[in-house]
Order: sequence, then structure tokens, then C-alpha cells
Amino acid sequence: MNIVVVGAGMAGTMLAIRLARRGHRVDVVERRGDPRGTNGPDAASISVGLSERGRAALRDIGLLDEALAKAVPMRGRIVHHSGRVTYQPYGADDTEVLHSVRRHDLNIALLDAAESVPRVRLWFGHRVTGLAGTEVRTPARTFSADLVVGADGAYSTVRTHLHRRVRAEFHQTHLDWGYREFTIPAVDRPEALHVWPSRRGLVVAHPNPDGSLTGTVFLPFDGDTGFSGLRDPARAGAFLAEEFGDLTDLVPDLVKQFLAHEPGSLVSVRTAPWQHDRVVLIGDAAHAVFPFYGQGMNAAFEDCAVLDACLAEHALGDALAAFEARRRPHTDVLAELSARNFVELRDRVRSPVFLARKRIDFALGRLLPGWRTLYEMISHSSLPYGDALARARRQDRVLGGLAGLGGVALLAAAWRKRSGRC
Amino acid sequence: MNIVVVGAGMAGTMLAIRLARRGHRVDVVERRGDPRGTNGPDAASISVGLSERGRAALRDIGLLDEALAKAVPMRGRIVHHSGRVTYQPYGADDTEVLHSVRRHDLNIALLDAAESVPRVRLWFGHRVTGLAGTEVRTPARTFSADLVVGADGAYSTVRTHLHRRVRAEFHQTHLDWGYREFTIPAVDRPEALHVWPSRRGLVVAHPNPDGSLTGTVFLPFDGDTGFSGLRDPARAGAFLAEEFGDLTDLVPDLVKQFLAHEPGSLVSVRTAPWQHDRVVLIGDAAHAVFPFYGQGMNAAFEDCAVLDACLAEHALGDALAAFEARRRPHTDVLAELSARNFVELRDRVRSPVFLARKRIDFALGRLLPGWRTLYEMISHSSLPYGDALARARRQDRVLGGLAGLGGVALLAAAWRKRSGRC
Repeated sequence: MNIVVVGAGMAGTMLAIRLARRGHRVDVVERRGDPRGTNGPDAASISVGLSERGRAALRDIGLLDEALAKAVPMRGRIVHHSGRVTYQPYGADDTEVLHSVRRHDLNIALLDAAESVPRVRLWFGHRVTGLAGTEVRTPARTFSADLVVGADGAYSTVRTHLHRRVRAEFHQTHLDWGYREFTIPAVDRPEALHVWPSRRGLVVAHPNPDGSLTGTVFLPFDGDTGFSGLRDPARAGAFLAEEFGDLTDLVPDLVKQFLAHEPGSLVSVRTAPWQHDRVVLIGDAAHAVFPFYGQGMNAAFEDCAVLDACLAEHALGDALAAFEARRRPHTDVLAELSARNFVELRDRVRSPVFLARKRIDFALGRLLPGWRTLYEMISHSSLPYGDALARARRQDRVLGGLAGLGGVALLAAAWRKRSGRC
Repeated sequence: MNIVVVGAGMAGTMLAIRLARRGHRVDVVERRGDPRGTNGPDAASISVGLSERGRAALRDIGLLDEALAKAVPMRGRIVHHSGRVTYQPYGADDTEVLHSVRRHDLNIALLDAAESVPRVRLWFGHRVTGLAGTEVRTPARTFSADLVVGADGAYSTVRTHLHRRVRAEFHQTHLDWGYREFTIPAVDRPEALHVWPSRRGLVVAHPNPDGSLTGTVFLPFDGDTGFSGLRDPARAGAFLAEEFGDLTDLVPDLVKQFLAHEPGSLVSVRTAPWQHDRVVLIGDAAHAVFPFYGQGMNAAFEDCAVLDACLAEHALGDALAAFEARRRPHTDVLAELSARNFVELRDRVRSPVFLARKRIDFALGRLLPGWRTLYEMISHSSLPYGDALARARRQDRVLGGLAGLGGVALLAAAWRKRSGRC
């Protein structure tokens, strides 16, 4: 059939490749210009963590090796805290890694791959202005299709048109915290996710292939110690030094970079239905999540695999409904976990009680075969999000029981003996 | 200043009149044609209940008498139930009435009044396609303004543009019940709101000046006894007769009318902020509510009075923020009450416990000076919605206390003695 995919980002290109290989003709219509003509990324987030879900989807289309060639493995998290540096390995063994990839590199690899499939055509600089049935209108051209896929992001135009046809639930929330990105020239042990927790903000950094890191500082928008209160270089410098200690030594021009751009905002979108009468949403258009579980792109790639499978198994109308039924419960869970993880990162990362529980949970992951923390199941497996949460809840009940039996002290001791620190 | 109001519905015309009288120039830009050229209503709801809030706003602009000339007073509710007919007066005395008005009549009265103010210009058939700063674009013309007001309803275009500029909260929910309107030729005692509660649906009817009533049947969209399961005339006829008894006697062609149109949907919209940089939302664009408290239009009229007052008291930037701060908490309460009232109407209207409590509350309203039910305060006063809810909660605690002291029986007895039935 003829398929129009709106949006040539991660999800749109991944899906176009899969559907064209099944024999469909796919037109990918993208508002922006071809990013391959430009020198660098203009996307919202410069570096992202590719987890097992995303790797599985890339493996499916034969693009994993190419993607990993430009990626940096992250085997754990390095926490910079009050001048101390702590290493927390991600998984029970070295197979459980995340890969830091530049969004720009991965998008280009996907575009090149899409263009090499005969039945895919890419249309850059075509902004969708209307959707009539499955006819997609842009100022220069009208595309007729049997199926329209909205892969056009959190502020999706396809979704806006879909909402005129159905009784849609739509919930959009913005965090009152924003983010700014900056570059860290080099650090010791770059092959990890670096985190600078603080009382009033958070910095996360992903390693790049050239040894530098891409840092992101998260702060409230408002207040004296938020972005709006830190416009003065002296104030910003004093604040960053106080909150993030060694970061100011690592990045000599931190203040300059901090003040160079307006902060970005963080949006979460939940909607239903995702599909109606031969129009379907995937990725951020269907379920934009806060970035605090590092799963946005990985979830979008999983959407592509699930939608592809549903289209192969069912007739078109049933396929879209099956896709939504199979997928939405899990992305709803991811949205919830991503929002909760922000609160955790903000409020609890320095709480002794919370850390003790995390450590015990983590230690159990090493002691008991089959025991996996929720974070591990989300990040290092392809177990559907909802199933991962259900299993974590069962484990939590066991953990509560153990604690009641005084097992905590024993397990904590076991953890102290076995866990690696640096 | 120059003001563009988008939307020539109830809220837009009411506001245009007020602002022009303050000396501002107001352009009202409306997507549809002039309704005065047509013979009947095309709006979603044909008849609405004008309550004290709405009357106060019409009184302010000198239009109350003209509006009431075409209205039918409703002094109470007539409940048709299992062949019995019960009368429940609305208020403690005859001053507490609602007025049934045809939306079409009231809109035309407002348009005529707006057109008679020299500084108001009405632009019909101009669809807004863009908003750049405070420049409002339509295909035929661009309007430059110092202030843009979005009075363009639950699916507001101005809101869509505003949301591109701010980190907006936006929550849109559709009820899984829909509605269809029909005409009831005549009934005994038409000067009341007529209600047919049933186990699986609800019918409400407003009297018209010609003695007929405009009925609205509310049913689930899905299921055997929902709109989708009742497309067959025989099935629909049997269902309507079973659920709404005497209604089928009163309306010989009920089934035909029931099947003549697709059911309408019911949407609730909550958003924040309402304003940013000289653009502000009012009425349904800011806070569409379910119709089950009969307050949508009345609340929109109140918005106009509050915004008008804020613009008179403050400089522009402060005025819009003051309007939102003063008004939004109250419409949030209204949204909540309107959603709860649906559940109450659907599930509890036939519950003896619920009815007993309602009756006691109502009886107290007659016995104790100053005691007013929440419904009375919402429908028959101009007390802000949030203040009404707070007062009802205080009363609820007293009612709980009285019940504990065995006061219920006494009060119920008092009520039985005093309440009028028919």
C-alpha cells in the first residue's frame, strides 16, 4: 500500500525502512530541511542513551553495527557529589550497558538507510498544512495514501488533525524545570553517564566519541536559583560552583555556555485514541515523556517494531487498533515512571533512606538470580514496560518482607562487601 | 486601545460591547457567517438556562429586559419518573428562577447590541489562520491589535497559537456519553426544567416561548443501549419507551427525531496559563465544562465582567494576569462540579440515600436563614464558584453533625410537611 509518514526523525525513518522492506511505498514528509546538509545537530537533545530496546530495533533493520561505531558504551553511572566521585555499574555484568549516541549521527544513519531502500522517498521542507481523510497536504504538494503515520513529535500536527475527528483524551503537561546543554571538554573515565546531583538542580552528561561530554543542566525556570534568576554571569558562576563543585573546574567556560541559550522546556503528552480511520500516531506524537528514564527514543523505536508486526499480522483497520491496544498500556507506564523518576532525582537522590533501599535492591540483583531492579528491566531488557513494573512490584513486596525480617542489615552488609566503588 | 476578539458567540459579543463602551475599538472576527441571516440555530445546544450570573452580566450592559422578553422562566424542576411526576422548586422563593433561552435568540440580541456600539466592527466569515504577536491573520485580511481575546470556544484556534508560546498545561477530556436534541410539542406546566432520569440514560428539556420544549437525550456512545447500539428504529423505540415512559407519549415522532442526527459529544477543557503577552482566553476557550451544572454560558458571561473590571483597574500586562488569578480558581471548581454532577445524575439520582440527603439539605435551606444548598449558590447567586463550594463544605460538616445527633429524622419530617409536590 501507499503510506505517508509525517516526520523524518528517529521514529519516522525507522518505520519507513521497516514498512518499505515489507513491500509498501513510503513517502516521508518532513517540515525541516535535510539535516545531512548541516554540520551539527539542531535537535532538542544532542546526546541520548541507546538502551537494549533501541538496539533491538536497530538490529532488526541491520543498522546496529553502524550505529554503535559512533557510540560510546556507558557501563555505569559516575556520580559527582561533594567533591567525591562514586561509580555505580549499570547492570550485574558487562552486557548491561547503555550506548551514548549523538542524535544527529543516528538520525543521519537512519536517513541514509531509508534512502537506500527503493520504495522510500524523503520530502524535506514540506510542512503539513492539512489532512483530509488520508490525503496529506503541504503548500507545494498533496500526498495520497492508504495509511498516514504521525511521527511528527510532541507538538504533532497529525495529532491536531486526528483530534478533530475523534473524541480525544489529550493531556499535555510541562515541567516547571527546564534544561540547557553545554560541552565538557574531557573527564577521567568518560565511558559512563556522569551525574552531578545537587539540592537545587541536576546535571547529567553523556560521553561523545571524541572524549568530550555533552552536559545538560536541569533547573527550575523560576526563582532566585532558577534560570530566570541566574541571568547575571557573577550570580550564575557562584551558583554553579556552589551546586556542582568540580564541574566548574572541568568546564572553564561553563558560565558563558550556560548563558548562551534560552533554556529548553520539558513536555509530557498523553492521548487516546492513537488511531482512527487509517491515521495513526507513533513516538512522541503519541506519548512524549519526560527524559528522566532515558527511554523516549527507545520507546519510539519499539513502537515501530510493534506497529510493523501488527500491520503484518492484521488487516489495516484491525492492525491500527491492535497496535494501540498492545502498546499504549506500556507507554502509559513509561510516562508515569519518567515523571516519578524526575521527582526521585530531584528530591531523593541524596536521601539516606532512599539510597539504602536502592542499594539493597541493587545488591539483591547481584545475589539472587532472576532478581532485577525496575531500572534494569526498563533499561537493559525488552520486557514490555508494564510487565517490568508489575514484576518490580512483586519484588518490592518481597523486599518489604525481607526488611521486616531484619534482612536489610544482612543484605546491606553483603552489598558493601561486593559493590565496586571508585 | 485596539482589541481583536476572536469569536462572535456569547462571550465574544458580550465582551466586545463592554470594552467598546470603555472607549476601546473592538474588531470581532468570526469564522462562521452572520447567524442573523439564517432562520434557526446551528449551535451545539439549542436551549440553555440563564442563571443569576448570566442575568447580572446582561443587566450590566442593559440587555436583560430584551433577553427575558424571549425567555421562559423555570421556577423548578419537574421529574418524570416511572409514570409519576414530581415538582422540585429551585429556590426558597420565587426570585430564584432560571430562564430558558434559545441560544440563537440571545446571540442575535447580543450581535444587534454590539453592532449598535460605534466602536465595534463585526467580521463574519473570517477564519483565523495565524497569530503573530498580536497580529491576527485571516485569509482575506490582517488585524493589528494591542490585545487579542480568544473567545473562540472549546476547540479554540487562539489557544492553539498561545500554546506555541508558553509552557502550557492542557487537559481535554471527552465524556463517553453523547447527546441528541429533539422537540417535545407541549407538556403540562411547561414553565420548569423537565427531567426524565433513567437507569441507562437521561433526558432534560427546556421550555420554549411557543409552549414546546427542547429535549436533550444523554446516552453512552457505545454498547447495546448506547447510541451505536440503537440505530435500528424498532430497537430505539423499544428502548426509549422502556427508559423514559411518558416521553414516548408526549413525542409521537421521538424515534424519527432520535435517529435524524449523529449524537453530539461533550468536552471538558482545562488549561493554564490563560494569557501571555497581550493574548487572553475567555469562556469555553479557557474552560469548557460539561453541561450538567447548566453554567457554561453563565460562566463565560462572568468572565467578561471580570476581565472588563481587571482591564479598567490595571495596566494591560497586569490586567490579564489579574484576570487569570482572580478567575481561574473558580472555573476550576466549576469544571469539577460539572463533572461530578454528571456522575450524580447518572448514578445517584435514584438512590434513596442520596435523595434523602438532598432533601434534608434543601429543607434546611427553607428552615434556616442563610443556609443555601451548593446548587442554589451556583445557580441563584453571583457568589464566586470556589467560595460557594467552600461554604457548602462548611454546611456539610454541620449537616454531618446534625445527622449524628439524630436531627435527620426531625428535619426530614419538617421537609415532608413543607415541600411542595405536584
